[in-house]
Amino acid sequence: MSAVAYHLDPRHGLDGLTVREQEIPAPGPNQVVMKVRAASLNRRDLMLMDGTYPLPATPGIIPVSDGVGEVIAVGDNVTRAALGDRISASYFVRWIEGKQSLAQAGEQYGATFDGMLATYAVVEEDSVVRVPAHLTDVEAATLPCAGVVAWAALTSPLSVLPGETVLTVGTGTVALFGVQHAKMLGARVISITSGPEKAELLRKLGADEVIDRNATPEWGQAVLDLTGGAGVEHVLDGVGMPTLPKSLQAAAYGAWVTTVGAFPAPEGQNNGDLLAGKFLTVRRIAVGSRTDFEAMNRAIAEHGMRPVIDRVFPLDQAVEAYRYFRDDNPFGNVVIAMPE
Amino acid sequence: MSAVAYHLDPRHGLDGLTVREQEIPAPGPNQVVMKVRAASLNRRDLMLMDGTYPLPATPGIIPVSDGVGEVIAVGDNVTRAALGDRISASYFVRWIEGKQSLAQAGEQYGATFDGMLATYAVVEEDSVVRVPAHLTDVEAATLPCAGVVAWAALTSPLSVLPGETVLTVGTGTVALFGVQHAKMLGARVISITSGPEKAELLRKLGADEVIDRNATPEWGQAVLDLTGGAGVEHVLDGVGMPTLPKSLQAAAYGAWVTTVGAFPAPEGQNNGDLLAGKFLTVRRIAVGSRTDFEAMNRAIAEHGMRPVIDRVFPLDQAVEAYRYFRDDNPFGNVVIAMPE
Amino acid sequence: MSAVAYHLDPRHGLDGLTVREQEIPAPGPNQVVMKVRAASLNRRDLMLMDGTYPLPATPGIIPVSDGVGEVIAVGDNVTRAALGDRISASYFVRWIEGKQSLAQAGEQYGATFDGMLATYAVVEEDSVVRVPAHLTDVEAATLPCAGVVAWAALTSPLSVLPGETVLTVGTGTVALFGVQHAKMLGARVISITSGPEKAELLRKLGADEVIDRNATPEWGQAVLDLTGGAGVEHVLDGVGMPTLPKSLQAAAYGAWVTTVGAFPAPEGQNNGDLLAGKFLTVRRIAVGSRTDFEAMNRAIAEHGMRPVIDRVFPLDQAVEAYRYFRDDNPFGNVVIAMPE
Amino acid sequence: MSAVAYHLDPRHGLDGLTVREQEIPAPGPNQVVMKVRAASLNRRDLMLMDGTYPLPATPGIIPVSDGVGEVIAVGDNVTRAALGDRISASYFVRWIEGKQSLAQAGEQYGATFDGMLATYAVVEEDSVVRVPAHLTDVEAATLPCAGVVAWAALTSPLSVLPGETVLTVGTGTVALFGVQHAKMLGARVISITSGPEKAELLRKLGADEVIDRNATPEWGQAVLDLTGGAGVEHVLDGVGMPTLPKSLQAAAYGAWVTTVGAFPAPEGQNNGDLLAGKFLTVRRIAVGSRTDFEAMNRAIAEHGMRPVIDRVFPLDQAVEAYRYFRDDNPFGNVVIAMPE
Repeated sequence: MSAVAYHLDPRHGLDGLTVREQEIPAPGPNQVVMKVRAASLNRRDLMLMDGTYPLPATPGIIPVSDGVGEVIAVGDNVTRAALGDRISASYFVRWIEGKQSLAQAGEQYGATFDGMLATYAVVEEDSVVRVPAHLTDVEAATLPCAGVVAWAALTSPLSVLPGETVLTVGTGTVALFGVQHAKMLGARVISITSGPEKAELLRKLGADEVIDRNATPEWGQAVLDLTGGAGVEHVLDGVGMPTLPKSLQAAAYGAWVTTVGAFPAPEGQNNGDLLAGKFLTVRRIAVGSRTDFEAMNRAIAEHGMRPVIDRVFPLDQAVEAYRYFRDDNPFGNVVIAMPE
Repeated sequence: MSAVAYHLDPRHGLDGLTVREQEIPAPGPNQVVMKVRAASLNRRDLMLMDGTYPLPATPGIIPVSDGVGEVIAVGDNVTRAALGDRISASYFVRWIEGKQSLAQAGEQYGATFDGMLATYAVVEEDSVVRVPAHLTDVEAATLPCAGVVAWAALTSPLSVLPGETVLTVGTGTVALFGVQHAKMLGARVISITSGPEKAELLRKLGADEVIDRNATPEWGQAVLDLTGGAGVEHVLDGVGMPTLPKSLQAAAYGAWVTTVGAFPAPEGQNNGDLLAGKFLTVRRIAVGSRTDFEAMNRAIAEHGMRPVIDRVFPLDQAVEAYRYFRDDNPFGNVVIAMPE
Repeated sequence: MSAVAYHLDPRHGLDGLTVREQEIPAPGPNQVVMKVRAASLNRRDLMLMDGTYPLPATPGIIPVSDGVGEVIAVGDNVTRAALGDRISASYFVRWIEGKQSLAQAGEQYGATFDGMLATYAVVEEDSVVRVPAHLTDVEAATLPCAGVVAWAALTSPLSVLPGETVLTVGTGTVALFGVQHAKMLGARVISITSGPEKAELLRKLGADEVIDRNATPEWGQAVLDLTGGAGVEHVLDGVGMPTLPKSLQAAAYGAWVTTVGAFPAPEGQNNGDLLAGKFLTVRRIAVGSRTDFEAMNRAIAEHGMRPVIDRVFPLDQAVEAYRYFRDDNPFGNVVIAMPE
Repeated sequence: MSAVAYHLDPRHGLDGLTVREQEIPAPGPNQVVMKVRAASLNRRDLMLMDGTYPLPATPGIIPVSDGVGEVIAVGDNVTRAALGDRISASYFVRWIEGKQSLAQAGEQYGATFDGMLATYAVVEEDSVVRVPAHLTDVEAATLPCAGVVAWAALTSPLSVLPGETVLTVGTGTVALFGVQHAKMLGARVISITSGPEKAELLRKLGADEVIDRNATPEWGQAVLDLTGGAGVEHVLDGVGMPTLPKSLQAAAYGAWVTTVGAFPAPEGQNNGDLLAGKFLTVRRIAVGSRTDFEAMNRAIAEHGMRPVIDRVFPLDQAVEAYRYFRDDNPFGNVVIAMPE
C-alpha cells in the first residue's frame, strides 16, 4: 500500500472521515517526520468528529493525537530526535512543563495540528517524546492522552502516596491507566465499573476493590463503607459530570477530586452542594505536559507496565475502528496499526 | 457589672441567646483563662443559631469564635501563654498546621467548645495565638475566622504573587480581609460589591477596580473585560453558591476559585458546566490552622494593617449586635466590647 | 521481674546508664501510660550518652525515643487513645504536621521527655501513633526515628516518583528504611554499602544496584556510570558529612540531597564547592512529624513491609544492646524486648 | 554608525573583546531579529571572559545575555512576537517553565547563543519576553539575569510571605533586586553591605535594616540580634561561598538559604558544619525560567518598580563599561545603550 492519510471534516460523524494518498512530507526547521506504526483512539477523537470538543478541529485536519512511529527525516536545527528513533508526540504541541497557557491549550495534534492517522506524521521537535523500550508499537501508541492525563491527575500538584486510597470511576482508558499508575505509586485502589466481566479484568489489572455499579447503584456509599466511613483521599473520575455527585460522596474530608471525563451533566442533575460540607478541591485537568509524559514513561519503563489493549485494526479499517470504539464498549485501548 | 456569659439554645434564633452570671472559671491543665475584651461576629454565628451550620452547636454553649482578651490564669503545664498576655484563639481548637483532619474540624470555639461571648473564656493552650500589638482590642477580635480564611485562601497551597490578579466577591468581612491581604501580597485586586457607597469604601481599602453588581449585573463578563479577556488567576468568593457561576466565568484558564461563603445555591441554579472548558480548580476551604493565623498576624504587624470595623456594641447589647449584623448589611466587622 | 526503668547520666558513656525500680506512673491530663513491649536503639541514643547530640539530655532521663507498647491507663481528656491500644509515640512530642518550630524541636522522648527504656512509659496524647497491625512488637518498635526520617526525606516537600532513582548511602537503619520506602514509592534504588555480605542483604531488601565502597572507593563516579552519566535525582545520605562530597558527585543536575546522618566532617575535608555547578538543593532534616509517621504507617500496612531486625536483647541486657549497637556494626535494628 | 557586534575570544580578559561590522541578520524559522537598544552586564559576563564560568563560551560568540530591543524581522511560524514589539530574551534559550534540564542549562545567550552586545540580535521565539511598559530601555535591559534570579530565589518552590524576613547579602545587582522583590512580596528586609553610602542607598531602596559589614564584621550575629535571636526565614546570598558561613549563622531553624553568588570559597574556609544543627535547606539556583521572567515582569509592572542604574555607557565604549563594572564597585546595573 502506498502512503495514505485520513482527513476529518468535522460535524459529519464517521462520514466526515476520508482517506487520501499522502506525499511523504518534508520536515521544516525544528520538525521531524515519522513513519507512523500505530495510532490509538480517544474519546476526544469522537468529540472532535461530532463538534462537541471545546476546541474545534481544523477542517481537513489529519485526526488522532496518539501514535508512535519511527523518525525518517529531521529538519534544520533539530537536536531532540535522530533518524531511526522510535518516538511519540506530546498531546499539546508546545506545553513543555508547568502551568499550561491558553495559547498552548489550542495547539493539539489531531485537532489544530495534523495528527497520527496517516502513514507519515510531522511532529514539532518540542513535542517529541521517547517511549519505553519494552512496549510494542501498539502499546506505546496508547500513552499520550489517556496515559498522561491519568498520570497528571495522580501526581500533581502533589503525588499520591503509598498507603493512600485512590478511587477510579469508569472503565474507559483513563480509568484503566489510573488503576495501573495508582498501583505503581503504591496506593490502594478502589474501582467503579459496570458488569462482572469488567470487574474481573480490573482486579487482574491491580484494583484492590471493585464495585459494580449495576449491582451497587449506591456506590458512593459503598466506597465509604470500604474505607471505614472515611472516604478516599483521591478520586479520578474518568466519566465526568454524571458521576461527579457520587464521586464527591465517596471523597474523604479534604480530598482531591479530579475529573477528566468529558461526559456532560444530564438534564436536571443537581450539583448545588458540590463543595459543601467536606471542604473538597474539585478540578478538571487537561491531559498533561511533555514533562509529565516523560516522567510517566520512566515509571512505566521501571515497572515494566503494559497498557491494556482491547483490539487492533489495520489502517484501512480506521472507520471501523472508530465505530467499534464508539459503539462496542471496549475494555482497553482501540489501536490502529499501520502496515509494515 | 459582674461576670456574665451568653449561652446558645440552637434553632431558636435570637430568642435562643440568653445571658447568665458567670463564675470565674479555673483553668485545667494545658488551659488558660482569659478575660475577654472584645468578641466579633461572623456569619457562622448566625448559622449556628439557626441550625444551618454543618456542625451543630452544643446546646447551652457559650457562642462566638472570635475574640481577644488577657490571660488571667494558666493551668498546669502551660508553656505557650503567661499571665497578662493579650491573646486570641484559633478557630479550630487543635488544628495546628497542615492538612486538617475531620476530628479537628469538629472542635470549634463557640460551637462545641465554649466561646468568647462572656466575661471570661477558657482556651486550650494549643489554640493560643498572640495578636499584633498595633491593633486595638476591637480590631484584634476580628481576626480568627474572617481574617484567617481570607489569608488561607490567598496563600495556600501556593501564595498569590505580586502582579497576579485577585477577584473578591461580596462585601462581607471575608471579602474585605481578602482585599487587604491581597494588597499585602502585592496583587492587583478587582472587587464585586453592591452600591456606590460600598464601592467607594472598597476603593479606599485598596481595591484597584470595583464593579457594582447592581449597575453591572453581568459582572463576570465585566471582569473579563478588565483583564483583557483573560480572566483572573484567583477568585475569593465570599458569598457562596449563588455567585459561583459568575465567579467561574470571571476566572482565567487554569485559575483557582476558592469559595468561603456559606450561602447555598438558589433553587434551580445550574452549575452543570462547573468545571468544563477552563480547567479550573474549585474548592471550599475551612478557615485555617493556627499556623495560618500566626503567619497572617506577622504580615498584619509588618504592614500595620487594620481590620475594618463597622460598629461596636457593649456586651449587654449582644443580642442587638447579632440583629444588626444579620439585618443591617454592615460594611466591616461588628464587634462586642466588654466593659473594662 | 518487677517494673524497672533505665536512667541516663549524660557524658558518662555506657557507665551513665543505670537501672532502678519503677513505680507504675499515673497519667496526667492528656497523657497515657503504656506498658512498653519493645524499644529500639538509634545512633542519637549513643550521641545523647556521649553529649554529642545537639540537644543535651536531661540528667536522669529515661532514654530511648523508639518503642511500642500497650495503653494501660489514660488521663483526663484523652481522646486519641484507649485502654488496650497498641501504640508508639512520635519522636517529637508536639510536632503534629507542617513546618517544625524550634520549640517543638526541643521536646523529644528519651532526651527531654522520659523515653521507652522502661517497663512503663508516659506519653503525651498528641504524640500517640497507632502502628501497623501486621508487625510484631519488636518490628513496630523500630519506626519512630529511623523509619520516619527516611520517609520524610523521600516524600517531602515533593514525593519521589515511580521511575526516579534514589541513592541510599550507608547501611545504618535510616538507609535500610530508605531502600524499603523508595521501593514502595516505585523508585529505582542504588545503594552504597561496605562489604559483600551487606551488599547481598541490600539486594534482598530491594536495592536494584548495590555498590561496595570497599571494592569501589570512587562510588560517586560509579553512580554516575550506572545512570548514564546523569546522576540520581534523590540522595538519602545516612552517614553525614564524611560521605557528602561523593553524594554530591553522584547527584543529578538539580537534584535533592538529604543528609540525615550525624557523622561530622573529618578534619580537613573540603566542601568548598558544595553547591557549585549542579545547582543542587542540599538539606538536613530532623526526623518528621506525627503526620509523617502516620502516613508512613499506612504505606507500611498497605504493603506489608517489615523492618529489618538485626538482634533482640532482653531488657536486663540493655547495656549490652547499646554496646552491640555501637561496636558491632549491625545490619538492621537492635531492639530491646521487655519481659511479658 | 553602521551596525556592529562585539565578539568574545574567551580567556583573554578584556583584550578578548573585539568589535566588527555586523550584517543585518535574517531570522530563521521561529526566530526574531531585534534591534538592540540597551544591554546590561552581569558578573557571569566577566566569568565567561575569564573562563571561570561553568559553561565555556563559544569562541567568537557575541557576548551579554541581558538586553532589550525592538523586533525588526520575524521568521516563519513566529507567533509570539510581531514587528515593532519591544522585547527581551530569557537567559536560557529554551527553559520555559518547571524544572530545568541539563540540556536547557547549556543554551544561554552570550555564551553558546549569540547575545546582545551588538546592533542586532537574533532571538529564538521561545525565549521572547515582553518587558514592562513603564521602564526605559536602559532599565528594561537589566532584568533577564539578576532580576530573574532574585525573583526565582524568593518565589520558588514556595513564595516568601508578607511578614517573613529576608536577608540579602551583598550589594551586587542580584541583592539589589532581592531587596526590591522582597518588598513587593511584603516581607521585612535586612541587608548586608559594606560602607555607609551603600547602606544609605539600600535603605532608600526599601531595606528595613541595613548592616555594614565593615562596621559589624560579626553580621551573622547581628542579624540574629535584629530578629530576637530567631534568625531569618530566607537568605538570598548574592556573594557566594565566602559569605555562606555567616549567612547560615543568620538563618532561622528550618530556613531556606539560596546562594546565587559565584564567588568561590577562600582557601581554607571551613564549611564542615554547613547543615548541622539548624536543619537548613541550602541551594544554589540557576537564574530562572521564561515563566519566572514573565511573572516577575507582571509584578514589576503592577508595582511600577524600577531597577537601579549605576551608569550607562555608549556602545562604542563597551570595553570601558566592562572595566568599570569589574573594577569600580558599582551600586546598581551597568548598562550599554545603543545609538538611536
